[in-house]
Amino acid sequence: MSHHTTISQVTKMLENLDRWLTAGEEHAKKKSFDANVLLAARLAPDMYPLTRQVQAACDAAKFAAARITGKTPPAHPDTETNIEELHARVRSVVEYLKTFHAADYEGADGRMVPLAFMPGKGMKGNDYLCEMALPNFYFHLTMAYGILRHNGVDLGKRDYIGSIALQDL
Amino acid sequence: MSHHTTISQVTKMLENLDRWLTAGEEHAKKKSFDANVLLAARLAPDMYPLTRQVQAACDAAKFAAARITGKTPPAHPDTETNIEELHARVRSVVEYLKTFHAADYEGADGRMVPLAFMPGKGMKGNDYLCEMALPNFYFHLTMAYGILRHNGVDLGKRDYIGSIALQDL
Repeated sequence: MSHHTTISQVTKMLENLDRWLTAGEEHAKKKSFDANVLLAARLAPDMYPLTRQVQAACDAAKFAAARITGKTPPAHPDTETNIEELHARVRSVVEYLKTFHAADYEGADGRMVPLAFMPGKGMKGNDYLCEMALPNFYFHLTMAYGILRHNGVDLGKRDYIGSIALQDL
Repeated sequence: MSHHTTISQVTKMLENLDRWLTAGEEHAKKKSFDANVLLAARLAPDMYPLTRQVQAACDAAKFAAARITGKTPPAHPDTETNIEELHARVRSVVEYLKTFHAADYEGADGRMVPLAFMPGKGMKGNDYLCEMALPNFYFHLTMAYGILRHNGVDLGKRDYIGSIALQDL
């Protein structure tokens, strides 16, 4: 599973997330409530609400690609206050991730990634991707999905998985 | 990110899950309720309860390693009815995954994995791991975590991530 394959998968999952937000809007319209009400929904009082889950998924994805390749990612100041702006955030990160090519990941395995919350410590690129970026990405992505499902949005496993590389046997 | 690295990470996350279940038991004891009540908890009426989320995470992990290496995994008939049995299920899969070595994954990239729900279709081992097994694994793992948090169990991001390969900068 090359780094490029991994980041392409992450990109696809963000495109799925973009569609889940649309499903949230459709659900709100059908039930006649303001879709932005969903943005403050959370699964527990001490967990992030939907807005922050989406922002965190976007950040995990963006920083995964940027940090293991030694690039500086675009800044996103977490100022989204409505679902339109969340769509834009997701799409902006998808667009950024699509600028990466297989050759960008040369040397990524061993590139040291400093950890902001642990001064003086870091992780090798491969470890960072596998043990930190990917589990964090899937955490926030799945929590966003879970918050939507918890609030009645009509989504299922196919919406979660999205397109797959099927082959004839 | 080699297949062996990926499956080792999955194994570690299952060990984390085992500890989250223990945290659920501790929470139940503190609040004086039967810990097995948690097993039927779900985030939405049309989502799996905790028991099934744990079983599904175990299956995604077990089948990931088995299918891309062409091995037959041990059977688990989904008969768990209490938290002790769920612990045993998780530990049994952890033990199974620890029997895999880097050499077992030779040829895994291109090995065709048939899809039970799509007769006549399959995915190449690498695609199966990246696009199906891993997102499914993290989905059910994170939902199990989310159900516990939703029910007040004292867990945080460190419990989710677990141990990481830290280096000095």
